[in-house]
Amino acid sequence: MPYFDAASAAPLHPVAREALLASLDEGWADPARLYREGRRARLLLDAAREAAAEAVGCRPDELVFTPSGTRAVHTGVSGALAGRRRAGRRLLHSAVEHSAVLHAAEVHEAAGGGRAELPVDPFGRVAAGEVAAALTADTALVCLQSANHEVGTEQPVGEVAELCRETGVPLLVDAAQSLPWGPVPGPWSLLAASAHKWGGPPGVGLLVVRKGTRFAAQGPADERESGRSPGFENLPAIVAAAASLRALRADPGTDGEAARLRRLVDRIRARVPELVPDVEVVGDPVRRLPHLVTFSCLYVDGETLLDELDRAGFSVSSGSSCTSSTLTPSHVLRAMGVLSEGNVRISLPYGTPEADVERFLEVLPGVVRTVRERLGVPAEDRTAPSAAVPRADAPPAAGSAEAAGLVVDALGRRCPIPVIELAKVIGEVPVGGTVTVLSDDEAARQDIPAWCAMRDQEYVGERAAVRGAAYVVRRRA
Amino acid sequence: MPYFDAASAAPLHPVAREALLASLDEGWADPARLYREGRRARLLLDAAREAAAEAVGCRPDELVFTPSGTRAVHTGVSGALAGRRRAGRRLLHSAVEHSAVLHAAEVHEAAGGGRAELPVDPFGRVAAGEVAAALTADTALVCLQSANHEVGTEQPVGEVAELCRETGVPLLVDAAQSLPWGPVPGPWSLLAASAHKWGGPPGVGLLVVRKGTRFAAQGPADERESGRSPGFENLPAIVAAAASLRALRADPGTDGEAARLRRLVDRIRARVPELVPDVEVVGDPVRRLPHLVTFSCLYVDGETLLDELDRAGFSVSSGSSCTSSTLTPSHVLRAMGVLSEGNVRISLPYGTPEADVERFLEVLPGVVRTVRERLGVPAEDRTAPSAAVPRADAPPAAGSAEAAGLVVDALGRRCPIPVIELAKVIGEVPVGGTVTVLSDDEAARQDIPAWCAMRDQEYVGERAAVRGAAYVVRRRA
Repeated sequence: MPYFDAASAAPLHPVAREALLASLDEGWADPARLYREGRRARLLLDAAREAAAEAVGCRPDELVFTPSGTRAVHTGVSGALAGRRRAGRRLLHSAVEHSAVLHAAEVHEAAGGGRAELPVDPFGRVAAGEVAAALTADTALVCLQSANHEVGTEQPVGEVAELCRETGVPLLVDAAQSLPWGPVPGPWSLLAASAHKWGGPPGVGLLVVRKGTRFAAQGPADERESGRSPGFENLPAIVAAAASLRALRADPGTDGEAARLRRLVDRIRARVPELVPDVEVVGDPVRRLPHLVTFSCLYVDGETLLDELDRAGFSVSSGSSCTSSTLTPSHVLRAMGVLSEGNVRISLPYGTPEADVERFLEVLPGVVRTVRERLGVPAEDRTAPSAAVPRADAPPAAGSAEAAGLVVDALGRRCPIPVIELAKVIGEVPVGGTVTVLSDDEAARQDIPAWCAMRDQEYVGERAAVRGAAYVVRRRA
Repeated sequence: MPYFDAASAAPLHPVAREALLASLDEGWADPARLYREGRRARLLLDAAREAAAEAVGCRPDELVFTPSGTRAVHTGVSGALAGRRRAGRRLLHSAVEHSAVLHAAEVHEAAGGGRAELPVDPFGRVAAGEVAAALTADTALVCLQSANHEVGTEQPVGEVAELCRETGVPLLVDAAQSLPWGPVPGPWSLLAASAHKWGGPPGVGLLVVRKGTRFAAQGPADERESGRSPGFENLPAIVAAAASLRALRADPGTDGEAARLRRLVDRIRARVPELVPDVEVVGDPVRRLPHLVTFSCLYVDGETLLDELDRAGFSVSSGSSCTSSTLTPSHVLRAMGVLSEGNVRISLPYGTPEADVERFLEVLPGVVRTVRERLGVPAEDRTAPSAAVPRADAPPAAGSAEAAGLVVDALGRRCPIPVIELAKVIGEVPVGGTVTVLSDDEAARQDIPAWCAMRDQEYVGERAAVRGAAYVVRRRA
């Protein structure tokens, strides 16, 4: 049963499993104690720290183990901001950071700190020039991921790290997605990562604070992990995490495996749009993680799509609004301005057989077709009958371009219905005429403009409505 | 090789080991995902929560898993204080709480919060009356451990919980030491515990917040663990922790094992003072944890004692100043006002063979004798020759009782030397005369009065000196 969600959690690496078992017997005692069991635990902890530091490319005393990648980010952000309080309180981060960074930024903002978001291009990439322009004198910290967790796009961390060094501002790199594939380039100041992304057990994160970086750990501390991560060390898991990271790096096949997975992903990127109509593959096609690809399927409900793929034996993830607890689309797809409906993220674990990918490509078209049929999407969407009527209770502004246009009432309907309704009526609109979609679904704000771009129609804009918003589209051809 | 430090960390319970291995294969995926691997992980997580809740005596939705007992305490204290901000900002805790509570209290105080410490009796026990007297209108939270981690004394948590309920103030119980032995009585509001104290793996703590308790989790949060413990769940370890707690509770032998360990501890309590001269056994002899006993040996250097016991094959812990990184004696022993030098804490793991305890009782007297001989402690300390001389540079206050007395200069000497030097000269002092010990060692403040109580000499008091302090003792007989 193919599991294609390594970016959420990778199955335990055999080396991790072996190391975990061995250290359950040798590493359960308190490494702070001086008796033999404590000394044995300390030796294991020290060796794990050295192995992890070597894989990251830092000194062992710059690296501490945390209970998760999320906690590494939280501790790193708050400690770096506190250490730089005299310089300023402004936090700069990309719009596509992991939620761990965004949550830490929200707490900083709620406490009166400043915050600025760096925009991304449609591939989800931050331009180094944007960082340079945004680096004000009062910037305390810059946060930039090494590669995006949803679309795989690599960020220019090396270049940004150089810029930050020149300006004397520390850069924190969230390396959770890329660390399994190699060290992070450039003179970054802080780095966070998560072991269960590389086949280590859950319960282990890494936080690296380079010597010379001002850092003041916040919250209660104790004497463990240099005062940066309180509580009894999760030792057997730490040993397993370090062993598996070292094994990945030492394996001469890692590069070969990266290249192999890259080829499988390239095949998915090429074949999916050929096999499935109305698909948008997103993220940078070249400067990207080897194992990750994301695409969105027009007129498809993401939750149903995931459910159908699960029934067909494929475990994948999605950034569609209907798959999130808040019913908002992924902030990453939103920042990129791309389609979010029917979104599928595939991240291949180390060793994924090619046959699994081929089987996925066989299954996907039928699954998408079924979901679309169930939603009543016509085969040729422009000629379909429509439920749209001119509405008296949502009068268009007099004299405006859409004055004579159609109004589609999609209030109370969730993604992908508003876009489907739009597609149904566009054929009825004369060229140069408009259609207005009324929707209170958050995804519409993103997906209607994305649909226009895909369909080569003109997105006029959005205006406020009594409920939700009114999205205006002009027919081009 | 007997390991007698279960209060620091217990070896992995066989049930925990088995559950951990099983859930490495079934529980590595993200329990928040809806595909089959995620659903399996969610089932394991839910079952673990139910098992832990049953053992604690709470509802499953009141219990979250944290990365450690320390983090459970930190989260519990800060969240409860924030939830009660309107009522007041005063935190009340006993003087003998675990450092996790003290560190959280320090952070609260540094942020402008109020803090009051409840004193303990010489057994280390808080009187419920003291809590009642200290419960002011602006008290936001009371923290009280169920049993002390260094001396084993049980606290009146049931009674204090009733008092708190009457006053409408939440009580947070640190149950780390007692939870393996049974649920915490009374209507407490919050509870924290740590799995590696009951034979679960490290990396798992419990935080229980009873329904109706005002609680506002601090710091960055995510959607995991009811927003109270961010970061990917340490699932295989959580499953193992819950399974071993349930196994302990379901085992009809648990009560029998508690009774058996209690008898072994009673034997240590009785025999050690018979076998070793000048020993003080501390903590409540009756209302105590079944498996834990602590004693202090006069004229003994704790670090050397632990080292010698380790060579003899026994792993024990100590609250002596020389075994702490800060060179201060344990705050628990200090609050109790008992001897801290030559301190040994024994905490027997589940299943400790009686023969190990007997062997310890055989070995201990010789070990203590060796340490004392090496320190130059005379067999009959009162008749020993002394290095004490009347000193011109530390003149006693004119006309004071110690005006004609001896002065012992122990400046720069660490515990137990100041007490040894005092013992050497007391025989030279006429009955009614005094001896003044100059010492800059923190332990002297505690150990000189404790020595006086043990030796039936009068402790006159302490006064400031150019360096350290001057401790005055009057000879009684």
